[in-house]
Amino acid sequence: MSESTVLVLGSDPPPKLDRLTGRARVIFTDEDSLADRLPTADVLLAWDFTSDAIRRAWPVEGPRPRWVHTASAGVDQLLCPALVADDTLVTNARGVFEQPIAEYVAGLVIAMAKDFYGSWELQRQRRWQHRETLRLAGSRAVVVGSGPIGRAIGSTLLALGVKVDLVGRRERPDDPQFGLVHASDALNGLLPQADWVICAAPLTEATRGLFGKDAFARMAPRARFINVGRGPLVVEDALVAALREWRIAAAALDVFEEEPLTADSPLWDVPHLIVSPHMSGDTLGWRDALAEQFQDNFERWSAGEPLDNLVDKRLGYVPVQ
Amino acid sequence: MSESTVLVLGSDPPPKLDRLTGRARVIFTDEDSLADRLPTADVLLAWDFTSDAIRRAWPVEGPRPRWVHTASAGVDQLLCPALVADDTLVTNARGVFEQPIAEYVAGLVIAMAKDFYGSWELQRQRRWQHRETLRLAGSRAVVVGSGPIGRAIGSTLLALGVKVDLVGRRERPDDPQFGLVHASDALNGLLPQADWVICAAPLTEATRGLFGKDAFARMAPRARFINVGRGPLVVEDALVAALREWRIAAAALDVFEEEPLTADSPLWDVPHLIVSPHMSGDTLGWRDALAEQFQDNFERWSAGEPLDNLVDKRLGYVPVQ
Repeated sequence: MSESTVLVLGSDPPPKLDRLTGRARVIFTDEDSLADRLPTADVLLAWDFTSDAIRRAWPVEGPRPRWVHTASAGVDQLLCPALVADDTLVTNARGVFEQPIAEYVAGLVIAMAKDFYGSWELQRQRRWQHRETLRLAGSRAVVVGSGPIGRAIGSTLLALGVKVDLVGRRERPDDPQFGLVHASDALNGLLPQADWVICAAPLTEATRGLFGKDAFARMAPRARFINVGRGPLVVEDALVAALREWRIAAAALDVFEEEPLTADSPLWDVPHLIVSPHMSGDTLGWRDALAEQFQDNFERWSAGEPLDNLVDKRLGYVPVQ
Repeated sequence: MSESTVLVLGSDPPPKLDRLTGRARVIFTDEDSLADRLPTADVLLAWDFTSDAIRRAWPVEGPRPRWVHTASAGVDQLLCPALVADDTLVTNARGVFEQPIAEYVAGLVIAMAKDFYGSWELQRQRRWQHRETLRLAGSRAVVVGSGPIGRAIGSTLLALGVKVDLVGRRERPDDPQFGLVHASDALNGLLPQADWVICAAPLTEATRGLFGKDAFARMAPRARFINVGRGPLVVEDALVAALREWRIAAAALDVFEEEPLTADSPLWDVPHLIVSPHMSGDTLGWRDALAEQFQDNFERWSAGEPLDNLVDKRLGYVPVQ
C-alpha cells in the first residue's frame, strides 16, 4: 500500500503527529501554497482552523483530498459549494471543546449574575460597596444550538439549577435531559422570558445574523446575551445598539465578525459588553488533544473504517445521532 | 397570654415584620441602647448581624431574652461566655445563604480557571491576546466546612466535574454525596494536592487563624484560595505574603478581619487577590427571606414548638443532623 500524503495547513505551532511517522508523508503548507498542493494530497488537516484559504482554494475539478479534517468544531470557514458537492469527507473536532466551553459559559453567567465585573472595578477604586446580586437557581436560559456544545452548556446550567430551553434546527420531543428540544422557529417565543440567551449554534446560511435587531428587541431588559458560537451569528451593530440603549442588561462575546479584533474596534469599550479573544474552548493541552484526535481518525482511515465526527456538509455540522 | 417583646438590633433597612403585628411588641434599638433594653426583651433579633454589641452587652445576671435569632449563618459575632453559659436559645439563618454562596464560589473558581480577570484587563487595554486556560473537570478542591454552606459549595463543584474533599470537625465515613468527610486534622495532608482551597467554616476558637503561614506553605504553587466564611479564619498577612512570593497562584476574599475594608487597606491591590465586600450570599430579596425566616420561627416560639436552626452554643454552629 502506498503511503498517504497528509497536507497540513498551518504550523504555528505545528501539531504533534508522531503517530503518522512511517505511515504518511506529512507536508506543511501555508495559505499561499495551498492551491498548488491540494491536488497532491490524500488528506488535508485544517490545523489553522481560522483560515478561509481552503474555501478559496478548493479545486472545482481534478484530483483533490478525499478527506478533510478541521481542528475546530465549526466547519463554516471550510465549506464552499465545490467541497459540499464532491464526495470528499469532512470531519471535525467534536469532543474536544464541549466541556471547556460549557465551563466558560457557566462562569460568564455567574460572573454576570454576581456582578464580578462591578466588584473588580470597585476594587480598583478601593471602594467597599455592598450590592445584592442575582440567584442563578430558578433563572431561565435559552441555549441556541443543540449539538454537543449546546448540550454541554445546557447540562452545566441545569446542574446549577437554571431552567434550560434548548433550541435546535428541528423539534425533538422527549429528550432525556432537556425534555422538549425546541425548533428554531420557536426561538422568538422563548426570548422574552429568558434571563440568559446563549448562542452556541453552528454558522450556516440558516443561522447567519440570527441575533439581530429583531432578536434583541424580543429580549427582556434583564436579559444577558452570550455568544460562543461564531461571530457572524450576531449582528454586532444591533447588539451594540441594544446595549447602549439599555434594551438588554449585558452581553459577552468570545467570537466576532472579524477576528482578531483590532485595537480600534468599537467593541472594546461598549458598556456592559465583555470581550474575550475566541478562547472559551481552549484549555491547556487542547492542541495536543486535537492532534491526537486527528491521528485516531487517521488510523480509522488507514484501516478503511468509518471516520468519527463525519460532518453532514449540507447541514454544516455533525448531526446528533 | 401577654404579648412578647421582640427587641431588634439594627434598622438600616428595617426588617419587614408584618406578621408580628398584634402578636408582639417590636422595639428597635441601636448598639448604644442595647444594654439598657436587653432586660426588657423576651426575644432578640440580631438584624444587624455585623455588630458585636450583643457580645459586649449580654447581661451576666438578671432578666434577659430567652431566645436570640441572628440574621446570619455565622454566630461568632454574637456568642460570649455568658450567653453560651445560660439557657437562652440561639438560632441562625441556615437555609438562606447556602445556594447563593455556592453559586458565588463556583463563579470565582471558573473566573480564576478561565482567567476572566486577565481578559478584562486586556479588554481595557484593547488587546487581543489568546491564552490557554484551565479545565475545571478533573481538578481537585478541598472545601473546609461541612455544614450546609460547605456542602452546597461541594455539591456545586461536584456538578462541575471537580473532585471534592470536604473537611469538617469530625470524620464522617460514607457520606451519601462526598463519601468520606475528613476530620480537620486531615487538612494538612489534603492541601498539597488541591487546585482549589475553599474556606466556608464557622469561626470558632478552633478555626480562628486556620489559614496561616503553615497552611499556605502546604499548598501547591498552582493552588487558588477562596474565603467566604469569616475573615479571622485567615491570617491576612500570611495570605498576602504567599501571594506576593508566588507561593500560591491566586486568592479571593469576600470576608475580612476588619469589615468594611477602609480605602487605605493594603488588601485592595495585592497581585492576584480578588476582593469583594462580604456579599457572596446576598441575592435580591435576601433581607425579606431573612425576615420571613425569623417570623416563621417566631410562630414556633409562640406555639411552644421547637425552634428551627438551633445553634449548639458550645460548638458555635447548628450541628448537621
